[in-house]
Amino acid sequence: MIAIPKGYRFSTAQAGFKYTNRDDLALLFSDVEAAGAAVFTTNRFQAAPVIVAKELLSEGAGLRGILVNAGQANACTGAQGIADCRRTLQMTAEALGVEPGSLLPASTGVIGDHLKMELWERAVPALIQNLGQKTPMDAAKAIMTTDSFPKMVWRTVQTVDGEITILGMAKGAGMICPNMATMLGFVLCDADVDPSWWQETIAQAVDKSFNAVTVDGDTSTNDCVIGLANSASRVNATGESRESLRHGLVAVCRELSYRIVQDAEGGTKVVTIRVTGGVDDRDAERAARTIGHSPLVKTAMFGQDPNWGRIVAALGRSGAAFDPDRVQIRLANILIFSHGRPVAMDRDAVFAVYLSRKDIEIHVDLREGTGHYTLLTSDLTHEYVRINAEYRT
Amino acid sequence: MIAIPKGYRFSTAQAGFKYTNRDDLALLFSDVEAAGAAVFTTNRFQAAPVIVAKELLSEGAGLRGILVNAGQANACTGAQGIADCRRTLQMTAEALGVEPGSLLPASTGVIGDHLKMELWERAVPALIQNLGQKTPMDAAKAIMTTDSFPKMVWRTVQTVDGEITILGMAKGAGMICPNMATMLGFVLCDADVDPSWWQETIAQAVDKSFNAVTVDGDTSTNDCVIGLANSASRVNATGESRESLRHGLVAVCRELSYRIVQDAEGGTKVVTIRVTGGVDDRDAERAARTIGHSPLVKTAMFGQDPNWGRIVAALGRSGAAFDPDRVQIRLANILIFSHGRPVAMDRDAVFAVYLSRKDIEIHVDLREGTGHYTLLTSDLTHEYVRINAEYRT
Repeated sequence: MIAIPKGYRFSTAQAGFKYTNRDDLALLFSDVEAAGAAVFTTNRFQAAPVIVAKELLSEGAGLRGILVNAGQANACTGAQGIADCRRTLQMTAEALGVEPGSLLPASTGVIGDHLKMELWERAVPALIQNLGQKTPMDAAKAIMTTDSFPKMVWRTVQTVDGEITILGMAKGAGMICPNMATMLGFVLCDADVDPSWWQETIAQAVDKSFNAVTVDGDTSTNDCVIGLANSASRVNATGESRESLRHGLVAVCRELSYRIVQDAEGGTKVVTIRVTGGVDDRDAERAARTIGHSPLVKTAMFGQDPNWGRIVAALGRSGAAFDPDRVQIRLANILIFSHGRPVAMDRDAVFAVYLSRKDIEIHVDLREGTGHYTLLTSDLTHEYVRINAEYRT
Repeated sequence: MIAIPKGYRFSTAQAGFKYTNRDDLALLFSDVEAAGAAVFTTNRFQAAPVIVAKELLSEGAGLRGILVNAGQANACTGAQGIADCRRTLQMTAEALGVEPGSLLPASTGVIGDHLKMELWERAVPALIQNLGQKTPMDAAKAIMTTDSFPKMVWRTVQTVDGEITILGMAKGAGMICPNMATMLGFVLCDADVDPSWWQETIAQAVDKSFNAVTVDGDTSTNDCVIGLANSASRVNATGESRESLRHGLVAVCRELSYRIVQDAEGGTKVVTIRVTGGVDDRDAERAARTIGHSPLVKTAMFGQDPNWGRIVAALGRSGAAFDPDRVQIRLANILIFSHGRPVAMDRDAVFAVYLSRKDIEIHVDLREGTGHYTLLTSDLTHEYVRINAEYRT
């Protein structure tokens, strides 16, 4: 059974922004004021809801919920886009009878077009009416765009002070399609937290999860992860319970980001690139990202080819410090490169089974220090090209 | 007619390193000593011929030629690889009756395997016998691997001191396949040059040409560009004639690198990404490279979709400094993004003709300063995925 953190209710409605026969508007609502924290896209182009959400968070008012729509991203829409975004929050807050500044916005979908306000006017009453009638899974479905499945994860955390529940949902099929797809993540929890610790912890969790997946290196104008903590469990997260919450939060975010890679547009595999032995973590990350972004490595994974040469070539140009004669590379736990040379083996025979699996690990041990980094990526497939070449603006 | 710089002869032979029914060994030979200059891959993994060529160049001996083989890259082959490489130079130099240190090596092909020395022993006598019987085009064909056409360019440069001839050849189908393809470039010229100026000028020309093309961001273990200047024209390149030579050299290298993008594996288009108005050239380059490496932009070009959103998203995460409300983006000379908004138009109608062309320009004007950079790239296609997923190590 889905564990729902205390004091939250959910709603969805069918507004028809872009999709038909499905809900495309969602409200994640807390019955009491919650502490809010968020991480936003670093893209220079920032969508109206990103700008407005940042503003509201900086004002530090108590938060009551998150209002999310799918189908229209409200990005590259100028001053009118910001006014439209504020208006959607205002009409929803009024109908709910809460403070206008207590709802955070998030949008995903086509960029460049103005919000269809008449559809909002019509949908908000239904959204209010459905509050508490809809499940978290309904909300996870309503925020989807090119996703092929809804992404929801929960954890209950037993602490010395009592039980905390964390519920996360995300949408995104690889952060790869700025016109249609965005990575949105929402984490709701019922702990009582110190607001500045909460912000720091959400940022850390995002770094260890959503920021450690890549499909094609793109980030959108709308990407954001928002965390609410409403204290409804009456568990005050301090000391030991705080650490338990931190771990639970990272686990939820990691699982959500794993599912985003699983759902990568056109992807058939989740490729884990684990780099150890770096002079520091940054160097290990540099190596992991260069390998994870290499179209040659990604097509080789799709082709189920144990192509050590492409991994070596990407590693060699990554800028990471290592000795070519000491580095070791393992694929599916089998040593394939060592002493500056490929390991002799009948690769097709050895890897026949491993490379047909849906999860593959590439492990590079730089053997210089203790720095490490793990990156998730997908393979590069015919389907990726088809989806992204056939898509029309 | 092909203009051949004075004092050079060419030879090829069929060694059978990997290919059958074609020549795969080439010698570019100068009848007199030449000044040599080169730029090598920055990959941490460097093939034996790269290591040996660097060593020979640092010794500063007079050079007589370049010995190139296709089919075996002699990379990731350890100490034996270096000994093998030296042996191939030695046996060729002996047969030619020139100093052992006067030939530079270059190899391209499968990495990880040791050179088949018995095939070299058999092929070198034929190579010597064919010297002067073969054309530069024969040599340009013999160095091909996955290339679909040979790449050769020449220029005669009229200077106040007389005529200089430059002949360049290259192989590479986009520097994209470390197991099979490498970018090799050779430039022969008959000017009398100052060696340190020659090195500096070759490096500059490479920066403005081969380093300003990208297919998938990969560099191989064997990439190199070697320039020889043998003074056989008796034109001493100083003052004004030196500048003429510099321009001719850049033109030859640019044209060669353009052809490499034209021949990009699976590519159907050459996409020029021109960024102007940067705070400096580095920032303009940063923007151009991020756009040029974006798989989303590259699939859109393949799909002939004027997708401003993907260009905007890549630009926004490039780290280049600009004001989102001031930046202007043009596609095929048509303004598509301005004032932070897409320009309203019937894009399909406007771009119906332009985007079906084989050459497309994306022009981003950051409107901050005078920094500029131009990058050539190819589109990302079904064929790219097919070639690189089906290739077996």
